[in-house]
Amino acid sequence: MRLARLSLGAAVLALVASVPASNVRSQPAAPALAAWNDTPTKKAITDFVGRVTTPGSPNFVPPAERVAVFDNDGTLWSEQPVYVQVAFALDRVKALAPEHPEWWDKQPFKAVLEGDHKALAATGQKGLVEVVVATHTGMTVDEFDATVKDWLKTARHPKYQRPYTECVYQPMLDLLAYTRASGFKTYIVTGGTADFVRAFAGPIYGIPPEQVVGTTFKTKYEERDGKPALVIQPELDLLDDGPGKPVGIGRFIGRRPVLAVGNSDGDFEMLEWTTSAPGARLGVLVHHTDAAREYAYDRESHVGRLARGLDQAARRGWVVASIKDDWKSVFPVPRSE
Amino acid sequence: MRLARLSLGAAVLALVASVPASNVRSQPAAPALAAWNDTPTKKAITDFVGRVTTPGSPNFVPPAERVAVFDNDGTLWSEQPVYVQVAFALDRVKALAPEHPEWWDKQPFKAVLEGDHKALAATGQKGLVEVVVATHTGMTVDEFDATVKDWLKTARHPKYQRPYTECVYQPMLDLLAYTRASGFKTYIVTGGTADFVRAFAGPIYGIPPEQVVGTTFKTKYEERDGKPALVIQPELDLLDDGPGKPVGIGRFIGRRPVLAVGNSDGDFEMLEWTTSAPGARLGVLVHHTDAAREYAYDRESHVGRLARGLDQAARRGWVVASIKDDWKSVFPVPRSE
Repeated sequence: MRLARLSLGAAVLALVASVPASNVRSQPAAPALAAWNDTPTKKAITDFVGRVTTPGSPNFVPPAERVAVFDNDGTLWSEQPVYVQVAFALDRVKALAPEHPEWWDKQPFKAVLEGDHKALAATGQKGLVEVVVATHTGMTVDEFDATVKDWLKTARHPKYQRPYTECVYQPMLDLLAYTRASGFKTYIVTGGTADFVRAFAGPIYGIPPEQVVGTTFKTKYEERDGKPALVIQPELDLLDDGPGKPVGIGRFIGRRPVLAVGNSDGDFEMLEWTTSAPGARLGVLVHHTDAAREYAYDRESHVGRLARGLDQAARRGWVVASIKDDWKSVFPVPRSE
Repeated sequence: MRLARLSLGAAVLALVASVPASNVRSQPAAPALAAWNDTPTKKAITDFVGRVTTPGSPNFVPPAERVAVFDNDGTLWSEQPVYVQVAFALDRVKALAPEHPEWWDKQPFKAVLEGDHKALAATGQKGLVEVVVATHTGMTVDEFDATVKDWLKTARHPKYQRPYTECVYQPMLDLLAYTRASGFKTYIVTGGTADFVRAFAGPIYGIPPEQVVGTTFKTKYEERDGKPALVIQPELDLLDDGPGKPVGIGRFIGRRPVLAVGNSDGDFEMLEWTTSAPGARLGVLVHHTDAAREYAYDRESHVGRLARGLDQAARRGWVVASIKDDWKSVFPVPRSE
């Protein structure tokens, strides 16, 4: 009996050593899904997780196959009034302007520097791509990572006046913790660039860089300052949005997810790919219905448009989580309080 | 005290549930590196792993950052007399020939079907690419996966007359198990295609699909037989070889590895990228020196050429493992014995 206990202790030590620290940290001490109201939405999620994790259940999924994919913008954190990565890109144009005097006479940069939103909007998709290329490529992956981390320290969300890293949704932090505690490996599958999201996904979501799938630029292995470096090229590699999300999942994960969570039509194919696979699968859409606590938008929104998903959710068996009705709280209690 | 023991038990259950099955399976029951001779090579490896995993050591690396990358062909399994994936492609040409009567009059297919190695060699790199495109693209990822699994059931290595999956190196299985037991996350980073290697990496190496980085073709999300599917396109996405290996590592893993193991100059940049990072890092090259038990080749070989690596190993501090001298056994005991 003593020996059995000793072995148990050794087993714990061996297992702790083999579990990534981020997983250990994510075991929830609080009750599961505490920031969710006790609605049918919450029940649909917990019933599903119960079915796929109960040994002997006809829907049981072995732990190694428990893949959960989460969109980022509008699903894990706020995407209004503009995507956080767009806010970053615009701030970077301002920060880099002293090195680019020509930008004061050249669109879309002129519009950004003059704060002329109308002129910027007039440059359209092409203008946005130019801004992104100018601010996201040409440097090493490490340099870009450091720039994002620095920016996040001082940037503030315009509505909430707090760091973007505190504009994450508490109910989704609960869901990440709950699924991980249920043996799921949690991934972000984002239309944002993987390098951007990897800069903060560890500390704020407990998701390590290797579990962030996103839009990528090509990189080139070359020497910089006498050392090997990965330099980001101004050439898109994968646009991880819409039908690009199943492509990214296939390329990076190589398995069909069991659970997919999104909020916009850019996530439609990710949910479709997940829930059309054999076996028990669940798709969840976050519906932004709460103008008071967050934002209310869906069919007509330029950011995070959700129309096709709403139309087809019922017949596809996807769960629609209404922020207004299903979430007890939206954001974590600020650290300063 | 009883309560403490109970909590320990609950902790074990929670941890077991959160650890991928493949990791649990890989905990070695046998002594570490049993198939390695007690040489300075083995000592260099175990000393390094000891340094990076001992809390309080100046070289300590937290578990979450313990990334080990392994080349596949010539590192984890035999790559002579031809790469296994090339043998697969040639067999597939023969299997598909009834659907392609035109191949009997068209190079490189004619040469493959007639077993004319000289004519095949004359078609060069271009011919090989045509064979690979014809046998690896146009189908869904799932269909390709099933084809590889089927082929592996019956294909035999020409020298050893046993399944390729039994031509893996026992000392490397030991090293995979040993590094995993030491908290490393083990990845394959292969010049072969990720889809090919994912078809067998789980059962034979205990490496799940999401930890296989390889050469990839573009895929397209489309409908096939009324269902969504990922269809492999005849367009290269990433050539995960040479300088492409650090690119693949950056894209898929997003961290610098701590340990890199390869065997050819195609692994040079992977070892360089790993060992030029700050902190304790180790590069290991498998040197094929054993014509009696396996093959002997390096500088002059067409398959798995190793020249630059041998020239620079000493000054870069890379460990060169000689199969003849450092490996007690080469292959696992066949299952039939």
